[in-house]
Amino acid sequence: MKTDREQAVFEAGIKLGALYHQWVGTPISRKSASSVESAIEKAVILQPFVEEITVHLNRSLMTENTFGYSELSGLMFEVEIITRVGFSYCRGHLALKNGYPLMRIVECNEISGVSHH
Amino acid sequence: MKTDREQAVFEAGIKLGALYHQWVGTPISRKSASSVESAIEKAVILQPFVEEITVHLNRSLMTENTFGYSELSGLMFEVEIITRVGFSYCRGHLALKNGYPLMRIVECNEISGVSHH
Amino acid sequence: MKTDREQAVFEAGIKLGALYHQWVGTPISRKSASSVESAIEKAVILQPFVEEITVHLNRSLMTENTFGYSELSGLMFEVEIITRVGFSYCRGHLALKNGYPLMRIVECNEISGVSHH
Amino acid sequence: MKTDREQAVFEAGIKLGALYHQWVGTPISRKSASSVESAIEKAVILQPFVEEITVHLNRSLMTENTFGYSELSGLMFEVEIITRVGFSYCRGHLALKNGYPLMRIVECNEISGVSHH
Repeated sequence: MKTDREQAVFEAGIKLGALYHQWVGTPISRKSASSVESAIEKAVILQPFVEEITVHLNRSLMTENTFGYSELSGLMFEVEIITRVGFSYCRGHLALKNGYPLMRIVECNEISGVSHH
Repeated sequence: MKTDREQAVFEAGIKLGALYHQWVGTPISRKSASSVESAIEKAVILQPFVEEITVHLNRSLMTENTFGYSELSGLMFEVEIITRVGFSYCRGHLALKNGYPLMRIVECNEISGVSHH
Repeated sequence: MKTDREQAVFEAGIKLGALYHQWVGTPISRKSASSVESAIEKAVILQPFVEEITVHLNRSLMTENTFGYSELSGLMFEVEIITRVGFSYCRGHLALKNGYPLMRIVECNEISGVSHH
Repeated sequence: MKTDREQAVFEAGIKLGALYHQWVGTPISRKSASSVESAIEKAVILQPFVEEITVHLNRSLMTENTFGYSELSGLMFEVEIITRVGFSYCRGHLALKNGYPLMRIVECNEISGVSHH
């Protein structure tokens, strides 16, 4: 009943929701940001159905507090994820929109893996 | 291109992934479990597109450590969520399956809200 | 070498650092705030050496995002904790100071539990 | 009233409690573990009063679930932190002891920074 395409969509949602709430609150600075981006990518790619994941954290929002660092907030995330179930792919985004860190499906595609004669 | 049904599925995934990673690690006991269940439910229902959320934490897995408490693990979650986008509903579960805390879509339905003459 | 008083101080630090990073990011509103306060208190009191814990979340900072809720930020915490090791007590705070969620030791005391003749 | 030494102890507690609850639950494997170790170290060193931080995650506990990865648990942490306030240093550990991820103060020292004639 549930299609591969729907499951690919579901899996994209899971991973975006998960990474957001796992990593929000992490102490961060412009110098350490790339290590956090890399660690998030390497954590997410481990999970089932993830084909690709790219994490960029917006340095311009990393304003320093009185102790010289910042804290990872949801507003800083710019994430693209591609999930696959069977021959169905889903591309999802997490990015700032109207002041809200919005998660959305960008597109879904079915790839015909082989030609049928 | 993306349907309401697909978005309902996506939103269910987001919320399940989010709650898992927000609360895993919380100190917990059989006596405090209901307060955590309630806090999770009240947090998740705030989020967009959530119609219903029920969180049960498996007390039988809350074995006491040397200091007399336990820690919320993914294996303890028994969650049902219903999301809605337009007239499309999606029901998702998070529950233990084969030793893994599995998130899955149980069903999706389109409700025809009004009759058209 | 390490005194009871020092351990009481250490334990207060552990619990404040822990609750901050466990709960930051939780979806929250003025209506749900008390359930989160209660759940945090019930989680922290389970941990060793905690005598008392009071959590207040600053509602005035819970401004609604485009979907009508907010997210628990470090700036919202007003926490008082009392830890005890032996006859040594430590009172610690987590509260906003100069725009930073500052954790600090307020006082430590040694209580002589019984009179010796 | 509160000494530099006590604050160094307090700060060590804060950082250990914080890192535990920030990262527990992260998807992890033996191959990705070093990126998580590095991200944690780079996050913690940003925080005030931290002089040194070393994070080792116990690979032998990273048993693969049905999808081929593991999840960062408190039992995996082997952490050493050195905090400093004024001329007082505190060394703290987080490591497995009797099946519990124990945080403890290993030693505190006062360094006389300069010789006085």
